[in-house]
Amino acid sequence: MQVIVNISLKEGVLDPQGQAIARSLNDLGFQEVGEIRVGKRIVIEVNEPNRARLHQRVAKMCETLLSNAVIEDYDIDIPDGQ
Amino acid sequence: MQVIVNISLKEGVLDPQGQAIARSLNDLGFQEVGEIRVGKRIVIEVNEPNRARLHQRVAKMCETLLSNAVIEDYDIDIPDGQ
Repeated sequence: MQVIVNISLKEGVLDPQGQAIARSLNDLGFQEVGEIRVGKRIVIEVNEPNRARLHQRVAKMCETLLSNAVIEDYDIDIPDGQ
Repeated sequence: MQVIVNISLKEGVLDPQGQAIARSLNDLGFQEVGEIRVGKRIVIEVNEPNRARLHQRVAKMCETLLSNAVIEDYDIDIPDGQ
């Protein structure tokens, strides 16, 4: 099944990449742009038909390798209809 | 309003970062992991109350700065209830 993992910086953690993009957009004439936060969107093919077990295994992957628990949050989305 | 922009590599474009993560997960015992593709998830605060105009402006931002049209696709999500 396909799983989407969104990794985002925790609230309060500085995001210099987002700030740089926001400033560039302002400079390019997009004055309506305010704060920008940049995260990762990881699409994973996992050979696990049981949704509950799939969620549990992907959470373990996030905690082991995909996210840095000190500064990042993760969110697991298993799209329906697979 | 808050807008979510997902930037992903086009199909067929090699994703060495995704391959490295997949191999690492396999080595860590997650044998059920297959292909992984890594993209960006950009959350933007935009001061534009009109949804149609908002979508149009964010598409322009993607084409101007946020995505590389040669190798990347973008997808714009404006969550309801704002």
